[in-house]
Amino acid sequence: MASTDSITLPAPFDAHVHLRQGNMMRLVTPHVEQGGIRMAFVMPNLVPPLTTPEQTFAYTKELQAIAPNLHFLPSMYLSAQLTPEHIRQAKAGGIVGVKSYPRGVTTNSDGGVGMEGYGVYDEVFAEMEKQDMVLNLHGEVPSDVDGDGTCVLNAEERFLPHLREINRKFPKLRIVLEHCTTAAAVECVKTLPANVVATITPHHLALTIDGACSSSLGFCKPLAKFPSDRAALRDAVRSGSPKFFLGSDSAPHPSSSKLPALQVAHVTAADGSPAHEVTLPSPCAAGIYTSQNLVPLTAEIFERAAIPLACLEGFCSTFGREFYGFPAPQGHEVTIRRVEGKKVDKAFGYKTDKGDDEWVIPFMAGENIGWEIAA
Amino acid sequence: MASTDSITLPAPFDAHVHLRQGNMMRLVTPHVEQGGIRMAFVMPNLVPPLTTPEQTFAYTKELQAIAPNLHFLPSMYLSAQLTPEHIRQAKAGGIVGVKSYPRGVTTNSDGGVGMEGYGVYDEVFAEMEKQDMVLNLHGEVPSDVDGDGTCVLNAEERFLPHLREINRKFPKLRIVLEHCTTAAAVECVKTLPANVVATITPHHLALTIDGACSSSLGFCKPLAKFPSDRAALRDAVRSGSPKFFLGSDSAPHPSSSKLPALQVAHVTAADGSPAHEVTLPSPCAAGIYTSQNLVPLTAEIFERAAIPLACLEGFCSTFGREFYGFPAPQGHEVTIRRVEGKKVDKAFGYKTDKGDDEWVIPFMAGENIGWEIAA
Repeated sequence: MASTDSITLPAPFDAHVHLRQGNMMRLVTPHVEQGGIRMAFVMPNLVPPLTTPEQTFAYTKELQAIAPNLHFLPSMYLSAQLTPEHIRQAKAGGIVGVKSYPRGVTTNSDGGVGMEGYGVYDEVFAEMEKQDMVLNLHGEVPSDVDGDGTCVLNAEERFLPHLREINRKFPKLRIVLEHCTTAAAVECVKTLPANVVATITPHHLALTIDGACSSSLGFCKPLAKFPSDRAALRDAVRSGSPKFFLGSDSAPHPSSSKLPALQVAHVTAADGSPAHEVTLPSPCAAGIYTSQNLVPLTAEIFERAAIPLACLEGFCSTFGREFYGFPAPQGHEVTIRRVEGKKVDKAFGYKTDKGDDEWVIPFMAGENIGWEIAA
Repeated sequence: MASTDSITLPAPFDAHVHLRQGNMMRLVTPHVEQGGIRMAFVMPNLVPPLTTPEQTFAYTKELQAIAPNLHFLPSMYLSAQLTPEHIRQAKAGGIVGVKSYPRGVTTNSDGGVGMEGYGVYDEVFAEMEKQDMVLNLHGEVPSDVDGDGTCVLNAEERFLPHLREINRKFPKLRIVLEHCTTAAAVECVKTLPANVVATITPHHLALTIDGACSSSLGFCKPLAKFPSDRAALRDAVRSGSPKFFLGSDSAPHPSSSKLPALQVAHVTAADGSPAHEVTLPSPCAAGIYTSQNLVPLTAEIFERAAIPLACLEGFCSTFGREFYGFPAPQGHEVTIRRVEGKKVDKAFGYKTDKGDDEWVIPFMAGENIGWEIAA
């Protein structure tokens, strides 16, 4: 499969990607294939979220029209309105997973539930188990820094008892702990049965809290954490366990949301003198964008992290495909090769749906990258 | 001293403030008095840093010319060039402290030393102990996320053995662990003798990691940490121990450094077509600005944190003054009173030394504040 300078992977699979809507969707959806991905599990946290099978089917059709050669795995947004009947319709229509967002933990997650409310899903989870659908968990408890002390650093570890409990109640339900970031999560997933797995993002294999907090371009949920947590993620990938595979959580935001600015308007005061009206910046949007070069970027990060390149095939192709039950089709292999002097693109320009010029800044923008897709 | 609606404090003391240079200095130095402070311990991390007594005397003179009624306590920057003779000159000239910055941990700290090098200061520390000068420690080990695993979250805890060691070697040296942020640091300072104390910033009594990472306006070094760390800081203040007192670490930066932007230039490509040149944003500057309303802000944060207002006098006035040996002079009391409908200023405009329009955005900009200085 691999020589030192060129690696061919069976039809790579990104098990967690955000493709958005409108012009942003039209910008980023083609990037997925350009980044070397042949199958993509698509997140449903749109505005409004995809809470019904019909919405999900319609969205998937939109995506398929943009990228006809990409294999989309659609997912639906877990909400209290979902019924077992919806699950049966979803399954029949080709939806493969249901994504759970605890309320308020990340972009467009206001429709999620508080952790106290997971019991309302018992019937839905039972039907999913019966239909062999996948439950995709954003595994963070909502922050409550003035209450129970949950913050972005311990939110994932505090979610793990919920993961264990769902697995205990629905032992055959296939579960993905998405974008896991802590040693505690890796350990937990390892100890649970084979039908409980986790995705890992390339950026969490690269970043720690230092990079996540010193530039808002590194800000994402879950936040990158201690070097010891990053080491546990790297070890999980190195171990070759099929429980840990690529889910990029590639999450584009316009640069105005990633780099919110101070707005100063020049106005005239009541007395006729010149004055200013100041509008403060919003908080930074959480998310890191990696779709456009995902497979080469993953190889680059593996090398920086001293993860053997031989681990790429399992991580990017076979483990996720096996879990989801979509073996790599022949003839869809992707080859990456070494390159010198190449840099990650600095930004991708597009027009917003309102007609404004905007930019999406990718992870490691402007940095050297030693791999590219072989044409 | 206090009624519910008005509190009079003996000449408040900010034991840690950054007053910068040039036009920024002219903007922020008058704010110190406006914020209710009557004595200020001034940081020496200028460009270049104040590494000699002469530089420090000259800078203090500049500040004194801007704010003649403010009592400045000058400090000098610890560097390998400092000699015992410098310490004697500094003491004779009224310099009260020497500030140690481990290399690279915060703004203008490139001249600091690595932790391996503290031994080079033995003679200087011995002379400081003899002269009864204060050692002010930025208590963080430099991050080394790819090496020993030090990151911004454990950097302070990993510094504590150095604090203990300096105290062991120089038992009479008066030491301030500046802007402490962790339960571990509070515990360590409590267990050390009375000549080892700590400053606490109002923003670390208010923020946790959630606020520190979701907006670059909350980004500072040391970073705000877990809710349990914040609780330990609040408890230290509530305890009424004279070992913990106000040092604001008020650190102004122009908004272009706090909110770095993507720069896009419209250019013409070689083939004559319109193109773009993209310049990526720098990392965010670390620092939070609080000078302009420091005493009222501290009262506001005490109330939000359920710290009794009766703790203000020790925290803002007497504890720090006792430690430094400058009891509050009669006739310099400051009164704050409750106010309704008041908000923290959104930004302070100024011209940079290059003539650009810039803004300093204070902590809690635009938020309600229930206290003000009584005119």
